[in-house]
Amino acid sequence: MIYTPSTLTEKIDEAIAKLPLKTEPQTLFEPIKYILSLGGKRLRPVLTLMATNLFSNDIKQTMEAALAIEVFHNFSLLHDDLMDRSELRRGQKTVHKKWNDNVAILSGDAMLIEAYKLIAKVPQNLLPEILELFSQTALEVCEGQQFDMDFETRLNVTEAEYLNMIRLKTAVLLACGLKIGAIIAKVPEPDADLLYQFGINIGLAFQLKDDLLDVYGDPKTFGKKIGGDILCNKKTYLLIKALKNSRGKQKTELLGWITASDFDPESKINAVKKIYNELNLGKITQNLIENYYLAALDCLSGIEVGDDKKKELFSLAENLMYREK
Amino acid sequence: MIYTPSTLTEKIDEAIAKLPLKTEPQTLFEPIKYILSLGGKRLRPVLTLMATNLFSNDIKQTMEAALAIEVFHNFSLLHDDLMDRSELRRGQKTVHKKWNDNVAILSGDAMLIEAYKLIAKVPQNLLPEILELFSQTALEVCEGQQFDMDFETRLNVTEAEYLNMIRLKTAVLLACGLKIGAIIAKVPEPDADLLYQFGINIGLAFQLKDDLLDVYGDPKTFGKKIGGDILCNKKTYLLIKALKNSRGKQKTELLGWITASDFDPESKINAVKKIYNELNLGKITQNLIENYYLAALDCLSGIEVGDDKKKELFSLAENLMYREK
Repeated sequence: MIYTPSTLTEKIDEAIAKLPLKTEPQTLFEPIKYILSLGGKRLRPVLTLMATNLFSNDIKQTMEAALAIEVFHNFSLLHDDLMDRSELRRGQKTVHKKWNDNVAILSGDAMLIEAYKLIAKVPQNLLPEILELFSQTALEVCEGQQFDMDFETRLNVTEAEYLNMIRLKTAVLLACGLKIGAIIAKVPEPDADLLYQFGINIGLAFQLKDDLLDVYGDPKTFGKKIGGDILCNKKTYLLIKALKNSRGKQKTELLGWITASDFDPESKINAVKKIYNELNLGKITQNLIENYYLAALDCLSGIEVGDDKKKELFSLAENLMYREK
Repeated sequence: MIYTPSTLTEKIDEAIAKLPLKTEPQTLFEPIKYILSLGGKRLRPVLTLMATNLFSNDIKQTMEAALAIEVFHNFSLLHDDLMDRSELRRGQKTVHKKWNDNVAILSGDAMLIEAYKLIAKVPQNLLPEILELFSQTALEVCEGQQFDMDFETRLNVTEAEYLNMIRLKTAVLLACGLKIGAIIAKVPEPDADLLYQFGINIGLAFQLKDDLLDVYGDPKTFGKKIGGDILCNKKTYLLIKALKNSRGKQKTELLGWITASDFDPESKINAVKKIYNELNLGKITQNLIENYYLAALDCLSGIEVGDDKKKELFSLAENLMYREK
């Protein structure tokens, strides 16, 4: 049988609630339980299980690997929130705000180790291959976060650098989960690689859609305030393209808003959005998203398994692309 | 042949210099290369190699596991220095002082992943067992660090709690390295466990000796300033015993020094040391150290291998016990 994403989210939530975490010292393990309990769509482990399910009805064998991916993802959120000084995560206090910086550092470290404890539980004959992919991916996610932070102080980030950064920071973990799901289902290497590339393309499209929604999302459906990225000069795809494509007075105005320390928020959002409009960046970004989306569909189509098995993955990809939040 | 610790330190230094670390982003990988280049005796990986060498001439097969232990140890130093706001490590700037807090967080994370990449290179049939021991130990080291930080704000830490904390924070990593060295040499389980217990006992004695030297070390040979732990109210074995064993006026005086915010450093060191002397804490600590040292020797004696093979380990243990710095 083919499971729906929502059924898989439920199964993952149940498994997370049962994770065998220690209780002492509380200041080490409580923050781990806290951040894992904040929920979310569990997109990464859902994709991991769906990859196995594409080839096998036995998704239980993949649950621990799926949890490893989710625990790793939450570790990276925990440390990223600390580094970015974010105060909220899914509407709740971040760990360093609820406890303190040191608790966030150390419980994050422990979480990374817990992720490795979970990945170690895959079938033993597959462990070397899966462990290597997991470590390579984990390191890439750190590289992506470091590039992202390095970009904050640079005005000359290229489009290629940006796309490489979001590939590392966001896409490789989705891809890694999908490939691990395929490896556990003992799929031929080419199919596992197609799932990996499907994940890369979906991940890139996903992050670019985030950038786009921040500017052009519908305030009624988008959960966050529109223009948040513009206010903090976040180097999104749109800002990077605008810095590259703007000329003369337009460029002077854009740089003026980026360097201004005292401004009215609404005025800044409207002014920068006007420049984005003049440069046609909504359409340019949307096109790029669709290119990645189509490339993802191509990968999925190439996998040697019946279309009926792929239905849920196609539909999930579509929902990610046409989401409004 | 049996290698001496100094030969092994050289081999480890050479291998560390050749570690295949990436170069970009520089802000992620430079701090890793920096902290690993600060040197030191490389005690943990030396012990790992010595454990293999006890049973086998082929120590090359253990080098990557030994490096994993050293990289993990340096990861924990990097994050501990950040959490403790330490400014110097081996006489050089700590990573968060030389770069910044975020660089220290993220390069530490990457280092933990690099340690796992190294441990993944042990012989594949031994990987599940070694990986489980490594993760369990890594988590225990985090637990030890958290207990240590929790103790800072408590005046009622018991001797048992303290000994458990230093077991976790210091002893288990030595023990883990030794046991992994034995596992790679394909030693019977009881001998591997004796090496683990040897490591625990040596580790406890080692940390207690640190506590003792801070008070009773010879300023001429002890690298650091005497009394550093006293000045910052560090919950050492001596302070915990003093808080428990002191009575009446003596206890009031001790608590007075601990809570004082404005004091002359020399006066505080002398006053607290006087109380330690009255309570005979130098002798009590020395006795406990010798108990652990003797227990360590017992473990080593119990291992089924000729005494000629054990010479270097016996001698290393002795040097650790009778060191003056």
